[in-house]
Amino acid sequence: MTEKHDQETETRLDTVFAATREMFELPEGVIYLDGNSLGPLPVTARRRVFDEIDAQWGARLIKGWNESGWIDLPQATGARIAALVGAPKDSVVACDSTSVNLFKVLSAALQMRADRRVLLSDSGNFPTDLYIAQGLLGRLDGGHELKIVEPDAVADAIDENVAALMLTEVDYRTGRLHDMADLTERAHDAGALAVWDLAHSAGALPVRLEEAGVDFAVGCGYKYLNGGPGAPAFLYLRPGLAAQIRPVLSGWMGHEAPFAFDTDYRPAPGIGRMLVGTPPVLAMASLHAALEVWDGVGMSDLRVRSIELSQRFIAEVEKRCPELVLASPRDPHARGSHVSFRFPQGYAVMQALISHGVIGDFRAPDLLRFGFAPLYLCPSDAVRAAEILEATLRDRLWDRPEFRQKMKVT
Amino acid sequence: MTEKHDQETETRLDTVFAATREMFELPEGVIYLDGNSLGPLPVTARRRVFDEIDAQWGARLIKGWNESGWIDLPQATGARIAALVGAPKDSVVACDSTSVNLFKVLSAALQMRADRRVLLSDSGNFPTDLYIAQGLLGRLDGGHELKIVEPDAVADAIDENVAALMLTEVDYRTGRLHDMADLTERAHDAGALAVWDLAHSAGALPVRLEEAGVDFAVGCGYKYLNGGPGAPAFLYLRPGLAAQIRPVLSGWMGHEAPFAFDTDYRPAPGIGRMLVGTPPVLAMASLHAALEVWDGVGMSDLRVRSIELSQRFIAEVEKRCPELVLASPRDPHARGSHVSFRFPQGYAVMQALISHGVIGDFRAPDLLRFGFAPLYLCPSDAVRAAEILEATLRDRLWDRPEFRQKMKVT
Repeated sequence: MTEKHDQETETRLDTVFAATREMFELPEGVIYLDGNSLGPLPVTARRRVFDEIDAQWGARLIKGWNESGWIDLPQATGARIAALVGAPKDSVVACDSTSVNLFKVLSAALQMRADRRVLLSDSGNFPTDLYIAQGLLGRLDGGHELKIVEPDAVADAIDENVAALMLTEVDYRTGRLHDMADLTERAHDAGALAVWDLAHSAGALPVRLEEAGVDFAVGCGYKYLNGGPGAPAFLYLRPGLAAQIRPVLSGWMGHEAPFAFDTDYRPAPGIGRMLVGTPPVLAMASLHAALEVWDGVGMSDLRVRSIELSQRFIAEVEKRCPELVLASPRDPHARGSHVSFRFPQGYAVMQALISHGVIGDFRAPDLLRFGFAPLYLCPSDAVRAAEILEATLRDRLWDRPEFRQKMKVT
Repeated sequence: MTEKHDQETETRLDTVFAATREMFELPEGVIYLDGNSLGPLPVTARRRVFDEIDAQWGARLIKGWNESGWIDLPQATGARIAALVGAPKDSVVACDSTSVNLFKVLSAALQMRADRRVLLSDSGNFPTDLYIAQGLLGRLDGGHELKIVEPDAVADAIDENVAALMLTEVDYRTGRLHDMADLTERAHDAGALAVWDLAHSAGALPVRLEEAGVDFAVGCGYKYLNGGPGAPAFLYLRPGLAAQIRPVLSGWMGHEAPFAFDTDYRPAPGIGRMLVGTPPVLAMASLHAALEVWDGVGMSDLRVRSIELSQRFIAEVEKRCPELVLASPRDPHARGSHVSFRFPQGYAVMQALISHGVIGDFRAPDLLRFGFAPLYLCPSDAVRAAEILEATLRDRLWDRPEFRQKMKVT
């Protein structure tokens, strides 16, 4: 790219993301680098939930299920998410939690590969994914094994014993990024299915579920999708796959005719069968409305800006705070949209940093974690955050006994 | 009771329930007899959700998990529900949907009675309960059977093959009430476990889970508990039972130390282990706040008033509308807090009735269903509703072609 192009791109991105920033209610004086844990409040979500309370639930009561479109929310919200993860619109539904959704898809995957006994994952996976696998395998009588290898060893561990590969694309600690297309292809070559958790991917970087041939995916509504605390999660099925699945969690919302009140379960056509109980309307409406922020945002633009933010932050931190050690891949194309630094007193430093208005988070034992969401962060935020981090390290508030006592640092 | 006592009681109930009625935002000119499907909006829930949006999520961002008490909501909400269903406060959590919670407890029950193969239920159960059982049994390899008998035949069908009895206390169509204590005792005498669904019981009539020795219960947050559309459900475990359960849905919120991010699942002590994913805060906060309405309401008072309302309605309807046939038990002690009438054109009549401001609902093939929630309904509402029902039958709006076309009545 020429310098002129760079400048044009930069100007365009500034315009796009200045507009999205206006769509959030951000507290004054805060630089929010924890959207990877909980996205901030979109104006659209606020307005929508207030309306759902007063004009829908309050005024329409039971009629809201039809008149306010509540019954269609899981699919309507899924369609908006699909557009962000490279999936056809009928291939995603919003529902339940990531953990519950993972249980559904793992159960389906193991049934589809009933002659195989290994579920392969890695030590970089988010713990709840491993816990859910443990719970499911413990309930099956077939002598299944959850095999956990190091992230770098996944490719070589895929063999003809593996029923399914279960990975989180972006490591929640370091941001290390798996090659989804490559590992999915390797799984398929070995006859295994590929299950991906997009918790730190959806809304963070381009995801191409359909192009990569991914069989099953789940993901989170409250991180980069800004759906609100505990927002419903989502679930993806490769087009055509639904017909092969008899859901283990077969509830009435996944029935072909929920209001016929038949005695026998008959799965709904398509991905609708993966729904279970009544959708949590207030939480789902918040997520549905939060996704409006993405109208007009291209994922490749988002990625360019995300890399710009994190690179800038890393450079500033390394210049200003030599005592912090980068824990994330240095190559921006090898990581997601957050970066982590190691520091032995990380917990106390993060508490002090938060008290100075820069909100990141801490992951044991020693990781300071910072998420960069271009929708509401600009390059100057990244620089300013590094400046405040430097000042925090220097003023040693985090090292003062009264602060440590208050923050319960042992 | 003497007449004087009757009058005193009546006056007291009027005072109690006039106060609770003020705690709801009810649309002008509507008599709402569908709180058994979706409770109306409590003022406390409205205020709380607005606050969660602006002052918690919006202003505190990620800090809300601790500072706003989000992380404790499942237990705090469960404690409030426990008080309404005769359960110790640490024996109930609010989480997930009723269907998902039923899956958890059925799986646990079948594991605890691993030498037995029959899950016993009845044809009056709500269909999703049967579907969930079908999904679970289909996934187990042990040759389990879901045995469905008529409601009257349940007692005699309990034998030493039954691993668990799975019943909904109040029939969603007719309101017929099972004898929870008797059937639970019979189940235990036969060595079986008792699983109860309280969808139409919690907040509708006195429930005595602990006294009845019930092993597992689930229930709904959006009916008589008024938590909002799709509010989280709840789950009860008999005190002492948790330690015997290794949850099949083992997610991080049910881990002994969720934020230690260990690789292996270790269940939390007590009922906390039944939690799975991140709680849907907006929906849960609404339910938590909605439960404030119950402060100062005694369940026996509620039952007295509920029976008064439904008896009054039945008497008025039978006097005014002889073409309607009572489908509910005539003995008020043999039914819950809703009543149903049969009428061949029931669907069209209900649409017309709703257009005249009386909101009940319809259940195929021919049931007009009316719920009586004393928290926001008074005896004059019951009379007025019957009058409007009579007028609706007489004006025959429901029989006019243009209305039937508009309402898609075939």
